[in-house]
Amino acid sequence: MSETYDYDLCVIGSGPAGQKCAVQAAKLGKRVCIIERKEVVGGVAINTGTIPSKALREAILHLTGFGERSIFGASYQVKKDITIQDLSSWCQHIIRNEVDVVAAQLTRNDVEIIHGEGAIDGPHRVRISHGSRDTEITAQFIYIATGTRPARPDNVAFDQEHLVDADGMLTMPRLPRTMIVVGGGVIGTEYASMMQALGVKVTLVEGRDGLLDFLDPEIQEALQYHLRQHGMTLRMGEKVVKIEMIDAPPNARSSTGKLVEAMLESGKTLRAESLLYAIGRQGATRALNLASVGIEADRRGRVRVNNRFQVLAPANAGLTVGAGGPTHGAVPDADAPAADGHIYAGGDVIGFPALASTAMEQGRLAACHMFGIGCQSFPEHFPFGIYAVPEISMVGWTEQQLTEQDVPFESGVARYREIARGQLLGDEDGMLKLLVHPDTRLILGVHCIGNGATELIHIGQAVMLLKGTIDYFISTVFNYPTLAECYKVAALNAVNKLAHM
Amino acid sequence: MSETYDYDLCVIGSGPAGQKCAVQAAKLGKRVCIIERKEVVGGVAINTGTIPSKALREAILHLTGFGERSIFGASYQVKKDITIQDLSSWCQHIIRNEVDVVAAQLTRNDVEIIHGEGAIDGPHRVRISHGSRDTEITAQFIYIATGTRPARPDNVAFDQEHLVDADGMLTMPRLPRTMIVVGGGVIGTEYASMMQALGVKVTLVEGRDGLLDFLDPEIQEALQYHLRQHGMTLRMGEKVVKIEMIDAPPNARSSTGKLVEAMLESGKTLRAESLLYAIGRQGATRALNLASVGIEADRRGRVRVNNRFQVLAPANAGLTVGAGGPTHGAVPDADAPAADGHIYAGGDVIGFPALASTAMEQGRLAACHMFGIGCQSFPEHFPFGIYAVPEISMVGWTEQQLTEQDVPFESGVARYREIARGQLLGDEDGMLKLLVHPDTRLILGVHCIGNGATELIHIGQAVMLLKGTIDYFISTVFNYPTLAECYKVAALNAVNKLAHM
Repeated sequence: MSETYDYDLCVIGSGPAGQKCAVQAAKLGKRVCIIERKEVVGGVAINTGTIPSKALREAILHLTGFGERSIFGASYQVKKDITIQDLSSWCQHIIRNEVDVVAAQLTRNDVEIIHGEGAIDGPHRVRISHGSRDTEITAQFIYIATGTRPARPDNVAFDQEHLVDADGMLTMPRLPRTMIVVGGGVIGTEYASMMQALGVKVTLVEGRDGLLDFLDPEIQEALQYHLRQHGMTLRMGEKVVKIEMIDAPPNARSSTGKLVEAMLESGKTLRAESLLYAIGRQGATRALNLASVGIEADRRGRVRVNNRFQVLAPANAGLTVGAGGPTHGAVPDADAPAADGHIYAGGDVIGFPALASTAMEQGRLAACHMFGIGCQSFPEHFPFGIYAVPEISMVGWTEQQLTEQDVPFESGVARYREIARGQLLGDEDGMLKLLVHPDTRLILGVHCIGNGATELIHIGQAVMLLKGTIDYFISTVFNYPTLAECYKVAALNAVNKLAHM
Repeated sequence: MSETYDYDLCVIGSGPAGQKCAVQAAKLGKRVCIIERKEVVGGVAINTGTIPSKALREAILHLTGFGERSIFGASYQVKKDITIQDLSSWCQHIIRNEVDVVAAQLTRNDVEIIHGEGAIDGPHRVRISHGSRDTEITAQFIYIATGTRPARPDNVAFDQEHLVDADGMLTMPRLPRTMIVVGGGVIGTEYASMMQALGVKVTLVEGRDGLLDFLDPEIQEALQYHLRQHGMTLRMGEKVVKIEMIDAPPNARSSTGKLVEAMLESGKTLRAESLLYAIGRQGATRALNLASVGIEADRRGRVRVNNRFQVLAPANAGLTVGAGGPTHGAVPDADAPAADGHIYAGGDVIGFPALASTAMEQGRLAACHMFGIGCQSFPEHFPFGIYAVPEISMVGWTEQQLTEQDVPFESGVARYREIARGQLLGDEDGMLKLLVHPDTRLILGVHCIGNGATELIHIGQAVMLLKGTIDYFISTVFNYPTLAECYKVAALNAVNKLAHM
């Protein structure tokens, strides 16, 4: 049957979801092509989003000596007068490497890379626009992994110098002295905290009452406390109603003679040399011609999928996503009928949680389902990694969720400053928290803020998912000195509390 | 019964084993004292060994920018002309903090700290020499945790300037340009690689055919390869027969006018500005008066314990330790009778594996056994952490051990340079290897070399000990970008190989 098509699978978009879907299918011996409209593979994750922002973060932490300040003193800095060139040359190096790694992986697995803009033209047909000319291919399955782009409201005059979106952060011509960040989601919080670490004076504006409200409340509180301690101004529950560029008043410092002014609904006016607009991203589906196969994107450009990652027909596309809460149910629980069983989607274009890590797994699972090999469902609990300064990660339930669901729990906490490795890192603020069921002693959630949180969380995740109890951590030997020891300290703390109940 | 004694437990030595034994007993409501002959608590681990060497390592990696060289170029260095003062001020800061943390933990748990040299004076009696005067206490249980000191052969004239032992590394008056390291065990390898990273020209002499021969052969090979790549000279299978100080010849560079000369049995002569003697450590039992309770230390000053950590009578002290191989059996398997059921020991003084991490668990388990609360046996598999440059860690079986035992396995490898996080760290050499049983798909061993190895190993350890299979790693979502992703890549590699068998 598949012989009648040019390919068994056509993947549109070469970000994490697209890559892993293509590679998994190729490993199953399928003929796969991947369509990429940019000159380089990797999507937003490698080229403008995840990786560059993490490279920027590494560069900032290293060049500023941020982590070492508690040891070498508050004014310690590896390099004075850090320029945007220092930062961007590091980032470009990392990006080039990653692009090479991804391209090599695709090539090694015989995935054909076709450069151009893909559009669907019937259930098994994709037209590719190469600028001046179009080509067409056919495929048994189509995988939509086109990702998102920053939402750009019409009334904001982005110039990518004073007024930037997330994609423009890496190409700003100079480091501003002051910055307003609009939006306290993952992207806004990460960039705001990095700029702060660089010495930029940051004001962060968020419409909700707290940053990253899927976090455990104690971790959220710690994050906000530390950001404020390091000098950031947080404006919570505030809405920006107008953003415009003004000429800097005579007594104001501005290297370009311009300032950005943001008016808040509450009447406040904020001014800074630059503004990062980090609210919302838009599914990159406009050029896909979804109507040709009876699919509709929602108003944010996203498509809906069922739990096999098949795109839903419009009638079902209104189903609530992840109704069970943000830490489980990456895709609708609904076993809803697909619009066309041959069209799948994954990654940011299907919405929450819009993480590179989950996108990869979505891509792999979709390929497994297409070609009928054992397809586990998406894991009930997956980790969140926030690369802010400080770093944050979590897996499982938060205290708030457990309380709302009337699930009893006890918590155990370890603070980095009490752990030898925390001392060595000079991290005085880090902490790890375990949430434990008092009867079964199973792990219900792991929450961490501080150096290495995104790595550390995976130890707790393994114990939680493999149904180990809190006693696992107590009887296990951890290398000394490691941050992993936090698990033992937190477990002893929890067990001591349980013993006194 | 315990009312007739001053204390329920007297711990001699406040290193990791002593601390954790004391704290565990105190948490059970027991009256505990800890005897420490130094002015500060913490033992070798905090004051001259584990922690200072790790602090030194952090300082070196940071100040030299070692990890960033692949990105910023081979000549990149944060600080030129690093002095011993730069390094030791960082170390002193860390040591002070750690001493405070340990002292606070002991005090918080009402453990009485008695400063002086302890000696046993009958089954339940300990005499403490405070210099000019002696005091005595009685205790129901005695825990020997006196650790080790560097072995100092009589024919080596240590001056702690040119000719140093491990305890003298932190107080060397200046950084040498060249160094001979005698002994390729953990301490020798760690310091040799650190000095190399600092730009010291190092020659490492080891009597066996390879460094750290408990490592998986592939990891050992990688370690030796990288050390040589970075310019170290390795002299394996060589024995040092004579070490002496000579006047530097006129054309030789030496800042003090002296050189150290080491003659090898093979006839070679090595010369350097300094020599670190890192062969063997001696149990610190001479002052303990063990004969008063019928115990004998072996010729290296160590005492033997059974699997409840009770000190063995001399008749049983000849039992082989850890006959099953270095990765399991921290204590004799023998359920041998104790010399005196009330005297326990743990930590370096009982020998292999002589790690702070295992010492802590030994201390905790001994206290549990003394006071009759549920005492798990020592874990079958515990991790090894080697803080060399590069860092190494392992848990479980090596390829060699499995082959010797006719256990079939398949391996899966992930290389840091193929992982986004590895790129961000600039670690091009790191790798993680999983050993998997082809039928049960259980994890048999985890081996890692590279940045963060000592933390990373604990994810694999949890899966191995909780009897998860290789499929756990494949179906799990890992934060992106993290080194933890190595587990997924290595697992896919192993599973691909298994599928083609």
